[in-house]
Amino acid sequence: MRPSPAPAAGPLTGTVVVDLSRVLAGPFCTLQLAELGARVIKVERPGSGDDARHIGPFVADESAYFVSLNRGKESIALDLRDAGDRGLFERLLARADVLVENFRPGVLERLGFGWDAVHARHPRLIYASVSGFGHTGPWAQRPAYDLVAQALGGLLSITGPVGGPPVRVGTSLGDLAAGLFAALGIAAALAERAHTGRGRRVDVAMLDAQVALLENAVARFAATGEIPGPLGTRHPSIAPFEAYPAADGPLVIACGTDALFRSLARVLGAPALADDPRFASAAARNAHVEALHAALAERLAARPRAEWIAVLDAAGIPCAPIQNVAEVLATPQVRARNMIVDVDQPGVGRFPVPGNPIKLSDTPDPPTRRAAPALDADRDRLLRWLDDGLRPPD
Amino acid sequence: MRPSPAPAAGPLTGTVVVDLSRVLAGPFCTLQLAELGARVIKVERPGSGDDARHIGPFVADESAYFVSLNRGKESIALDLRDAGDRGLFERLLARADVLVENFRPGVLERLGFGWDAVHARHPRLIYASVSGFGHTGPWAQRPAYDLVAQALGGLLSITGPVGGPPVRVGTSLGDLAAGLFAALGIAAALAERAHTGRGRRVDVAMLDAQVALLENAVARFAATGEIPGPLGTRHPSIAPFEAYPAADGPLVIACGTDALFRSLARVLGAPALADDPRFASAAARNAHVEALHAALAERLAARPRAEWIAVLDAAGIPCAPIQNVAEVLATPQVRARNMIVDVDQPGVGRFPVPGNPIKLSDTPDPPTRRAAPALDADRDRLLRWLDDGLRPPD
Repeated sequence: MRPSPAPAAGPLTGTVVVDLSRVLAGPFCTLQLAELGARVIKVERPGSGDDARHIGPFVADESAYFVSLNRGKESIALDLRDAGDRGLFERLLARADVLVENFRPGVLERLGFGWDAVHARHPRLIYASVSGFGHTGPWAQRPAYDLVAQALGGLLSITGPVGGPPVRVGTSLGDLAAGLFAALGIAAALAERAHTGRGRRVDVAMLDAQVALLENAVARFAATGEIPGPLGTRHPSIAPFEAYPAADGPLVIACGTDALFRSLARVLGAPALADDPRFASAAARNAHVEALHAALAERLAARPRAEWIAVLDAAGIPCAPIQNVAEVLATPQVRARNMIVDVDQPGVGRFPVPGNPIKLSDTPDPPTRRAAPALDADRDRLLRWLDDGLRPPD
Repeated sequence: MRPSPAPAAGPLTGTVVVDLSRVLAGPFCTLQLAELGARVIKVERPGSGDDARHIGPFVADESAYFVSLNRGKESIALDLRDAGDRGLFERLLARADVLVENFRPGVLERLGFGWDAVHARHPRLIYASVSGFGHTGPWAQRPAYDLVAQALGGLLSITGPVGGPPVRVGTSLGDLAAGLFAALGIAAALAERAHTGRGRRVDVAMLDAQVALLENAVARFAATGEIPGPLGTRHPSIAPFEAYPAADGPLVIACGTDALFRSLARVLGAPALADDPRFASAAARNAHVEALHAALAERLAARPRAEWIAVLDAAGIPCAPIQNVAEVLATPQVRARNMIVDVDQPGVGRFPVPGNPIKLSDTPDPPTRRAAPALDADRDRLLRWLDDGLRPPD
């Protein structure tokens, strides 16, 4: 029998989240809430459930992708067009603190579960929507996937090799960023509700979240009128700050201050570089970044990467190898911080997933996480809970 | 005279944040809190202040970078080694709900303002630290910049052209992600404190935040043992999902379902593609992604991008041009969602910054934001506020 899904202790322990969301942005949002202690009840379409159940990679016919996003959640299958199931869903909302959904705008409104209707019936409920373009504006109804948000939001145009083709961020940042902002809006609304007793609507668009992450690209364009392009691994306004070739492969070096650059020049056996007028100040280094690259690359090519990292580390200069995913999972600091945890999934066995990056005092951060639910796995227990308004949600 | 920096109305209105942080991860965290209504008081080093004041791009000698991250905050300059200033800082903490800092671990402890000491004196205060590697583990003392976190965290290894050099995400995601997770931890701790009356320590590492965003790269490695590499604009397990060349430039197309692919094949005038056994299911398309690319590219090359986007949009197929930053700022949906707002900065004039992607019901989202503070600009007002414990923080 599946162990009782008691929520992890955390700041959101006691918070009940009803989660209608599918695939990525919404489930990533509710994963953050679950990691902070909330109880997350997935309400899935009968039959096929969350689309992510059918997206690879698969292990023993289970989607590892689905498991990584939905570990520790509960599941009930409900058809929101069926009268009986609508009644059940309404009872879930009455017990919930938060509703999260990522349908196309209008879908829940047509089903009678739009914000206005739900808020009227459940004024304490926080209602969060994550969508491609948001619930307002001329494009509200357009469909979006991660790549569309990254492309429209400008991130593709500033990511890639200099002069080369644009590339997508190798992770679905269009979804993940929207999910994170939604989780932040929900947590802030929970803090407010503790004082006001009233819930808020949270409306987060994937496109908006991309724009919010453009950082200095907007300031650069506003200040200079020049359109930012891809810069490889280089920072637009700090130098040195990019990848350089050591004898056996690249390493990255980042020096944000004159003092760090002076140390770097000394470690490279070329202290005069720090007095070269082209490199003596942050502004000068940035203006002569190609010459700087050549001067550093010439020296770095003389020794292998690991040797450089050892001496740079000893001198306190920020540097790193470019690690692949296997190396990340084996990194001592990543393990020491419990950033790779194991899920013990029935029928699959244990496998690693990223842990919770929000480390909190006096809060358990166990090295394992509970399994992801089979579709509808928690129906009976949830029905008993709804029938017994007084019993705590075990 | 500078207008009174009354905080924007929002769920965190009334929350006072004392912000010791510099440059990016910490200030991006407190920017999110300010956008949600919190009052943020920057405590800066006398003389030079936040290092970001000296990082370009500059407009009329003001850092547009600094302004974009610190609009709407207040500033007081304090030397935490000076007895008088330490007393003032302690009085600020007594009035604050949240402290945010991003010093190297150990710095504040040596100054007498580490978590244990501060928590003992101010048990309600939430104390958030953002650092390169976190406050625990063997690498806690190592320095990090964004690029170091991206390189160690694996993101560089999965971002870039197929077979090409790794590239950095074109925005400082190492910092921004850590700042966002920290803001989420703080908001959750505020929600908890409303019930418990006690503050928590929030400890977020840039490296940990990168690992948390690896998404399906970890699942892929765990499921297959294959080390994920860069994929250009392609999704690792959904096809079609990448950039394709139209007659005059690339556009992105993303179809996550068989129904969408069937529509795409029809719009391209090649309905038979949807019945081709290589492309008839999601798994088949993913297994034959190169052949799929060739088949789609051949048809897409026949017409210009704008024509394709019009017909694809009409058919409900997610697609987009790859927009540069100038195009992002002019996008109707971005403007309609108020995602580009103006800061009116004394001595500089108005310039655009990204807005707040968390849209909340019954919450003002004005088209302008207050200016960033000059160093120490709010000293007198803050001292009066500290002297008058009863007066609200205007």
